[in-house]
Amino acid sequence: MRDLAVGRRLPMLGPVNVAGIPYRTIWPEPDGSAVGIIDQTRLPHRFATARLASATDAAHAIRDMLVRGAPLIGATAAYGLALALRRDSSDASLLAAHASLLATRPTAVNLRWALDRVHATVARLPINQRAAAAWTEAARIADEDVARNRALGEHGLARLEAVAHACHRRLEILTHCNAGWLATVDLGTALAPIYLAHNRGLPVHVWVDETRPRNQGASLTAWELGQHGVPHTLIADNAGGHLMQRGQVDLVIVGADRVAANGDVANKIGTYLKALAAHDCNVPFLVAVPGPTIDWTLTDGAGIAVEERSAREITHIHGLDAHDRPVEVRLAPTTTAAANPAFDITPARLITALVTERGIAPATTNGLRALYPELAPLPPLTPNTPESSP
Amino acid sequence: MRDLAVGRRLPMLGPVNVAGIPYRTIWPEPDGSAVGIIDQTRLPHRFATARLASATDAAHAIRDMLVRGAPLIGATAAYGLALALRRDSSDASLLAAHASLLATRPTAVNLRWALDRVHATVARLPINQRAAAAWTEAARIADEDVARNRALGEHGLARLEAVAHACHRRLEILTHCNAGWLATVDLGTALAPIYLAHNRGLPVHVWVDETRPRNQGASLTAWELGQHGVPHTLIADNAGGHLMQRGQVDLVIVGADRVAANGDVANKIGTYLKALAAHDCNVPFLVAVPGPTIDWTLTDGAGIAVEERSAREITHIHGLDAHDRPVEVRLAPTTTAAANPAFDITPARLITALVTERGIAPATTNGLRALYPELAPLPPLTPNTPESSP
Repeated sequence: MRDLAVGRRLPMLGPVNVAGIPYRTIWPEPDGSAVGIIDQTRLPHRFATARLASATDAAHAIRDMLVRGAPLIGATAAYGLALALRRDSSDASLLAAHASLLATRPTAVNLRWALDRVHATVARLPINQRAAAAWTEAARIADEDVARNRALGEHGLARLEAVAHACHRRLEILTHCNAGWLATVDLGTALAPIYLAHNRGLPVHVWVDETRPRNQGASLTAWELGQHGVPHTLIADNAGGHLMQRGQVDLVIVGADRVAANGDVANKIGTYLKALAAHDCNVPFLVAVPGPTIDWTLTDGAGIAVEERSAREITHIHGLDAHDRPVEVRLAPTTTAAANPAFDITPARLITALVTERGIAPATTNGLRALYPELAPLPPLTPNTPESSP
Repeated sequence: MRDLAVGRRLPMLGPVNVAGIPYRTIWPEPDGSAVGIIDQTRLPHRFATARLASATDAAHAIRDMLVRGAPLIGATAAYGLALALRRDSSDASLLAAHASLLATRPTAVNLRWALDRVHATVARLPINQRAAAAWTEAARIADEDVARNRALGEHGLARLEAVAHACHRRLEILTHCNAGWLATVDLGTALAPIYLAHNRGLPVHVWVDETRPRNQGASLTAWELGQHGVPHTLIADNAGGHLMQRGQVDLVIVGADRVAANGDVANKIGTYLKALAAHDCNVPFLVAVPGPTIDWTLTDGAGIAVEERSAREITHIHGLDAHDRPVEVRLAPTTTAAANPAFDITPARLITALVTERGIAPATTNGLRALYPELAPLPPLTPNTPESSP
């Protein structure tokens, strides 16, 4: 164990490095009074951590995107519920904290999944056992995320190797937003196969969509790939289609905020456009989908609520000025109105495959059902389903 | 005639207003010693003009994008050549200025078209008549642009009215980049039908792609629509596909930097992605194409050179800080490399129709040939063409 530059002790050795030191995105403080997180709103310009000591802190961290990415949101919410029970383990406290944490971000399905799991673990326990049980369950959720991402990464790596074998040169991969280490507890989802490929000597290069309006690609994906030494190039979101047309992309892989039972994917706004281009250019389009991201209650993506975020994310932007001071600047005329849908739905028909911790599936109801038979709802009783059996 | 706030006299009444005053984007100074332009790099935060007194000034204005948009680039280059001949009317001067102006932007076909036209006008004249003839020809090119845009706008308006008639509500139009008044001498190309619709009482609302990396949508399109009072909403480039999926876009219209004889369109990077989404969502996708933008020497878009611009346009951005001071901020980690292709090619198969000053054509070789029979090259002698006769 080594001390980090920021003065916090390394919680656990991981597969992804910051300045040469393995790190997780969330960790229990040694005294158990709080959890530590990386304040991702400071990246890429500053690596800073924050301390969450209450459910209110956790809700703030999720809502204001100090933490983001469906898996990390889930882990943070689980710890948030545990922190609430530290203060007050009553049913009323449990329900109130569950509700307030659930309201922070409407699209990420892991948020409800993690909260429900902690709730189910503690609801029937005696009051005085709840806090400790919730804490243990939150830690388990975090550890399981890491294990899940590693398994997902191995399955994805096999697909990367197959594509690389066919193209006989450095593999060119495009990704949108940040589904990396920073979006999860460790390793990432879409970036997990890329980190494993890089660590094992498969030459890869990543085209990083900047991902307006919040620029998670420019701020987070470019930063974490750079920290770990993975070759990458930042591009405007507009450029990916052109690169695919010119044969400069061998494979696209993105994460998911919520996946319907038929394989429709809700992910960062703009994902749909890249899927259309990949389909048009015959470039494989993969979506990294950890099991908890699948919403089995949705038969397709039409029912997924899409969060509308602040217009200010469009009209203003943060960066560092020439003196490395953080500054927010206005980009548009003062009177200009803006709309800011945060996600879009990529139809399953545009997705080559879903990469999960249990293997790779076609983006179909039957494909997902085959991997998660214990979770998938029973098939409908209609005699003629449009999808043939596998 | 009224004095403008900036202290310059109004050159000519036009159909588009700045703060209630009609304006062109380029005008001869009254003493004939220079041309005035709007310095578009200052927009949307400041309305400033600049004076071009030499071919060097004109080349700088084009290269550094004080003026941009294929038609306005053409007019500026024409005046630049005339200014060069004011100083030195020799063949050597003519050729040197032609070459230096042509080198400023590789993609805009109007640039070569306008320079060649001025060159052809003056090359056989006596030395002492060249400067005046070039000046007159440049003014003619500018005036013709306005007339052409008006004719194109009328044809486009007819299509807008047809779509509006079918949807029984305010017409929702999406546009990418700036193909408005500011991209031309006046009125615009893609925005010409929109201005005419607005001026004549057809209710329209425009979704304005911000158009990273240079944000011509946020800086220019939002500004000029706002100045003229056309309802509009700024969106991230990533959002257009989602809006089309949700039925919130009735029609897409964009400009073009260069159009091949088969209807393939080179336009601002990201246009291809919007065309894919429009095609996928059954939204009409129109491209406003003034005749000089058609490059009859190209049978298709594969041969169009795509300009690669500075990485700094991706990693840094300009805006106004909280005190309304212009500031450039850095968005990405200092070590991050970026790629910046400025245009992409939208295949003709994704384009519903081309809107020209001579009418509306399908995006096919025969469609364009029917409108420009005197310009189109003869049909190839192959007995079986893939395209059927109209």
